[in-house]
Amino acid sequence: MTTTAPEPSRTAPLRIAIAGLGTVGAGVIRLLDTNAQLIAMRAGRPIEVVAVSARDRGKDRGVDIARFAWEDDMTALARRDDVDVVVELVGGSDGPALALSRASLGAGKGLVTANKAMIAHHGLELAKLAEAANAALKFEAAVGGGIPVIKGLREGTSANALTKVYGILNGTCNYILSTMERTGADFADVLAEAQRLGFAEADPAFDIEGVDAAHKLAILAAIGFGTQVDFANVRVSGITEVRSADIAQAAALGFVIRLIGEADVEDTPEGPRLLQRVRPCLVARGHPLSAVEGATNAVVAEGNFSGRLLFQGAGAGDGPTASAVAADLIDIARDEVGAPFSIPGDHLSALPPAEPGHRPARTYIRFMVKDRPGVLAELTAALRDGDVSIESLIQQGRSQSGGEVMVAMVTHEGPERCVTQALALLEGSDSLMAKPLVLPILPL
Amino acid sequence: MTTTAPEPSRTAPLRIAIAGLGTVGAGVIRLLDTNAQLIAMRAGRPIEVVAVSARDRGKDRGVDIARFAWEDDMTALARRDDVDVVVELVGGSDGPALALSRASLGAGKGLVTANKAMIAHHGLELAKLAEAANAALKFEAAVGGGIPVIKGLREGTSANALTKVYGILNGTCNYILSTMERTGADFADVLAEAQRLGFAEADPAFDIEGVDAAHKLAILAAIGFGTQVDFANVRVSGITEVRSADIAQAAALGFVIRLIGEADVEDTPEGPRLLQRVRPCLVARGHPLSAVEGATNAVVAEGNFSGRLLFQGAGAGDGPTASAVAADLIDIARDEVGAPFSIPGDHLSALPPAEPGHRPARTYIRFMVKDRPGVLAELTAALRDGDVSIESLIQQGRSQSGGEVMVAMVTHEGPERCVTQALALLEGSDSLMAKPLVLPILPL
Repeated sequence: MTTTAPEPSRTAPLRIAIAGLGTVGAGVIRLLDTNAQLIAMRAGRPIEVVAVSARDRGKDRGVDIARFAWEDDMTALARRDDVDVVVELVGGSDGPALALSRASLGAGKGLVTANKAMIAHHGLELAKLAEAANAALKFEAAVGGGIPVIKGLREGTSANALTKVYGILNGTCNYILSTMERTGADFADVLAEAQRLGFAEADPAFDIEGVDAAHKLAILAAIGFGTQVDFANVRVSGITEVRSADIAQAAALGFVIRLIGEADVEDTPEGPRLLQRVRPCLVARGHPLSAVEGATNAVVAEGNFSGRLLFQGAGAGDGPTASAVAADLIDIARDEVGAPFSIPGDHLSALPPAEPGHRPARTYIRFMVKDRPGVLAELTAALRDGDVSIESLIQQGRSQSGGEVMVAMVTHEGPERCVTQALALLEGSDSLMAKPLVLPILPL
Repeated sequence: MTTTAPEPSRTAPLRIAIAGLGTVGAGVIRLLDTNAQLIAMRAGRPIEVVAVSARDRGKDRGVDIARFAWEDDMTALARRDDVDVVVELVGGSDGPALALSRASLGAGKGLVTANKAMIAHHGLELAKLAEAANAALKFEAAVGGGIPVIKGLREGTSANALTKVYGILNGTCNYILSTMERTGADFADVLAEAQRLGFAEADPAFDIEGVDAAHKLAILAAIGFGTQVDFANVRVSGITEVRSADIAQAAALGFVIRLIGEADVEDTPEGPRLLQRVRPCLVARGHPLSAVEGATNAVVAEGNFSGRLLFQGAGAGDGPTASAVAADLIDIARDEVGAPFSIPGDHLSALPPAEPGHRPARTYIRFMVKDRPGVLAELTAALRDGDVSIESLIQQGRSQSGGEVMVAMVTHEGPERCVTQALALLEGSDSLMAKPLVLPILPL
């Protein structure tokens, strides 16, 4: 069904279509219903849902969708003359979400999306499409749930050259790590509990292996540094190897363990290089990120004039995500929209990835070794030969199971590559009962 | 001197004039110089200083101002045809700052200001002037230094009905309280040290008595709740009565003491009422505000969909403040400007102040009493008669000085007015050697 309507103006309602009516889609409808009056006041005009599309029309979502036009084929939303903005809440980096997004922007309609995977993979193409069509492309909900951190970087820190952007970008991992910390339970048990409580997906790989955080980091880096989104070059390691013993050890040393995504631009003789990494880190108590518990997200941006800024809040959930989607819609209704990545797509630079081996770092290294004489000498000799200087070393008492003993250490500050080199010297050693775990210590 | 120039467009430079060249004014010039290229890219056009005004033309400010036109009379800036936006960094709620602001907006020029006192007192009038002239009025730097919290409330949480806005809004007080906490030193000594280090003004009254925080709170409340700025009805108490012994006592109970500004709207049978208060509070360790140290500021906004959001960063200083001023200028250059208080001035509601006496609260009460028999019975009887239920009570050992003994207690949750009533029963008692100190406990 297609209806004709007058061209949108700045006082006529902003007419939206929603594709995808999962918890977030239903949340957006509930929010627009609940806060309708206040939104119309702040936006300067009402925001009205006119059409929706999802897999199953009949499903009970707790909100009345019978009042909206229905499209079986979601891309039909992009062709409706009575729609100004399409809200894409389908998910997936490609497929129907991408097709709908291209069609919507191609038709000159605004696009609001919560789809971090799609923006991480196709953000540049979509931004150029949007700019060519003079249409809005907004994705506040793609990073940090309800935290206005895309806006924070795009507009709040816009006068700054950022030196660094980093943070806790995945609520599932943070829930797992902070629960392990609080309860002493093991990874697998906490993951199962998180799945039961809805804090982790049935297939948790994207979260616990760091891919979801990497999507978000790539988006933040692009906005923060004016670079093309470069998800492919994010170095990612997840939290699956972190044991409760590591968390206890870190605690004894004054640290917590958090999955941190961090990005910066390094000036090298060959020109600027972009470093993007997601990995579990030791975070000193006293650092603002050490106090971030549960499914909360937090992003730190360090600007050359602003200093360190922290944005923190619920990283997921239908309410917070709907709040971010609706904030984007209000911006569009207010006509406060510009380049999706802060500078026009054509001007985003393509930076090669940085090689961080020379960077100074303190590192936590944990070995699981055979409980036999000479092992400690073997480890320390390798570290010496790799030029790694040990600040503190803790050997746990005899293990209960299978003669396995944990040896944990913290290095003095030294080039990152030295740890890699030292561990290479130990490769193949039959003293090691597991791959050593290397966790950098986040600078204060 | 007046020059003529073409009407500003969205690609021509945004031409600004700066009134006031103290550390912040000089910081803005330094920022616009240092980050010029990046700002032009993000703003879509250059931002150029064309004219300045200050008290002393010859003073060395570390930046070259000879390249700019000079006006002895700062209100002349508002009359220059070659100026699009006036940046007011003079300070003071009235006088020259207000005259310049009125003249600039009256002439249809944008106004960017860091002047919290002026916005707290005259924000509504200036917003209406700006809206009538279709000119920008922006004041990100007025609250929270470099933290984009005005933007956070105006745009980031725009889809939410806020239930509460609160935070640490004065860096001087937070520096003093967190230093007292860390060192055990007394208020007067830490204040003197803060003055020596530049964290406190020579005349610190505005800061330590809570007035500065009240200015900021009134601005946040207006944006968060869509109300007319109502500084006159902020209930203010400062930190001058807080002793190091209170901080130690709070620490023993698991709390820190912070000066908190908080605002909410209460629905009463007589209609909505606005509550705004600034006062030292006990903040439980584990609350995000408890970890805010030194001159840092932090604001929490709780939305009905977003949940709790935290914005944190440097609350003052030339770099952070310049960052906020320049972010406002970039917004204006991008033409991303709307109602200064999020909704048009004519629609901001005038809410009567709320009476909080019935609200449930837990409270810390500290008495300094004569060291003689029966005093504890006198205190506890008054609390019983006021219907205050005591959760824990600590009587310090004998005092070194003058037979003064400290008795500190934490109440169970009960109506706020009961504590007031109980203390009224003790008024005039010669057992009390100082006015009792009442510090509410911030809910988690």
